[in-house]
Amino acid sequence: MKTVFKVDIQFGDCDPAGIVFFPNFSKWMDAASLHFFVSHGVPPWRELVKTTGIIGTPLLEINTRFMKPATYGETIEIQTEITEWRPKVFVMQHIVTRDETLICEGTEIRAFCIRDGDRLKAIEVPADIKEKCQA
Amino acid sequence: MKTVFKVDIQFGDCDPAGIVFFPNFSKWMDAASLHFFVSHGVPPWRELVKTTGIIGTPLLEINTRFMKPATYGETIEIQTEITEWRPKVFVMQHIVTRDETLICEGTEIRAFCIRDGDRLKAIEVPADIKEKCQA
Amino acid sequence: MKTVFKVDIQFGDCDPAGIVFFPNFSKWMDAASLHFFVSHGVPPWRELVKTTGIIGTPLLEINTRFMKPATYGETIEIQTEITEWRPKVFVMQHIVTRDETLICEGTEIRAFCIRDGDRLKAIEVPADIKEKCQA
Amino acid sequence: MKTVFKVDIQFGDCDPAGIVFFPNFSKWMDAASLHFFVSHGVPPWRELVKTTGIIGTPLLEINTRFMKPATYGETIEIQTEITEWRPKVFVMQHIVTRDETLICEGTEIRAFCIRDGDRLKAIEVPADIKEKCQA
Repeated sequence: MKTVFKVDIQFGDCDPAGIVFFPNFSKWMDAASLHFFVSHGVPPWRELVKTTGIIGTPLLEINTRFMKPATYGETIEIQTEITEWRPKVFVMQHIVTRDETLICEGTEIRAFCIRDGDRLKAIEVPADIKEKCQA
Repeated sequence: MKTVFKVDIQFGDCDPAGIVFFPNFSKWMDAASLHFFVSHGVPPWRELVKTTGIIGTPLLEINTRFMKPATYGETIEIQTEITEWRPKVFVMQHIVTRDETLICEGTEIRAFCIRDGDRLKAIEVPADIKEKCQA
Repeated sequence: MKTVFKVDIQFGDCDPAGIVFFPNFSKWMDAASLHFFVSHGVPPWRELVKTTGIIGTPLLEINTRFMKPATYGETIEIQTEITEWRPKVFVMQHIVTRDETLICEGTEIRAFCIRDGDRLKAIEVPADIKEKCQA
Repeated sequence: MKTVFKVDIQFGDCDPAGIVFFPNFSKWMDAASLHFFVSHGVPPWRELVKTTGIIGTPLLEINTRFMKPATYGETIEIQTEITEWRPKVFVMQHIVTRDETLICEGTEIRAFCIRDGDRLKAIEVPADIKEKCQA
């Protein structure tokens, strides 16, 4: 039930200190998160919105700890799983490694959301999506 | 001792759901962090590195809670302060608002770092920088 | 009929060579482009789409020449104008300066587009928008 | 002598119109450019700078034509080659396709640069690098 998402770090992902500009790790964890769902058979958001109104899984909270820097030319792997399902939110964990080295790790609290006028509204975790992700 | 950093949100900062792609908030908090130091008289990192070897203040940890989405055409303000100084790290807090509305808030644990071969090494918080930031 | 869009360059906009990672100039020219329209009274795309179906002005072509690098802590100004209107496209020109120094300059060929199923379709330049931009 | 660089387009690469935010194509062409050199045996810039002073190949000019939009969940391929060597600059061409569909194509004029105080200076194309890239 874990998925692995690979990233080849590029020159343009790095800052003047020569290391990955840290918000890129959040960007890659977001990509790993959608990759997790699609790997479990959930349609991409632009399809899902047509049938269910769900526009995606916006973040309620992120926590990330950075252990080692990384730089361009290196490949990192993000191991992703859902560690907790609550009625309206779920917790995703991402472990980012370069070979045996732990680069950073993060948790995200997310909710499935639909549009509500100009705003977004969290809905209960859809049972069928939860089931797919636990299969 | 707090600083305020303004961001005009752009179309390209937003995702297919029409709201700010959340890693951009980390990007803007990073900008607010450097803005805090420069506002307190600390030179930009490319100057500081020449005299002290300090390449910046890499992140050890971030925690962000997202309350409301924001979109392009809106202006947000990031209020930044250092809430704690420890010997080798410090805690920065960022409160992001759009008018009276709290959009998100985050804390960062950072360390002043120098190069150590191909790696980075955290050093003790320089007394003169700490003093400037408390003035 | 020209507009000016200011950018404060951030640390995270720069690459390991310490200069602006060049795709950011395209990002800022895009922001300057929307700023041009909004300054001339055109609603933001998310409003315009509701009344006209227009989702924005996707690019058909860009040409950019880079004269001088720029770095974080510097402020640049982008002077934007429409230099040519054709039936279905228009040409935007952006001149990017730091004080008196020309940093880069670019032209964009853009078209107003609407959705056509899963694709986009260029439409004739709306007369009322053209008029606003020439006023 | 051509190289191919693959990109899996992510949700966060797309804008509120649901298509790739175009500056990302420049970002990916830049990655394809470095990939071209590394594939031909040129060391990454952070190594090359130590032995030759060369910090990379900054852009002098880009020209890109966009034929079709692309979106997340799709994979694109960038075919890269150097189409012209001049004494101090070279021209790179990138053809971006999704399966048989041409998405965009661009040319870049680049120069090998070294630091000259706080500025950058273009040098003659190093003979050994040119030779590697033609092998």
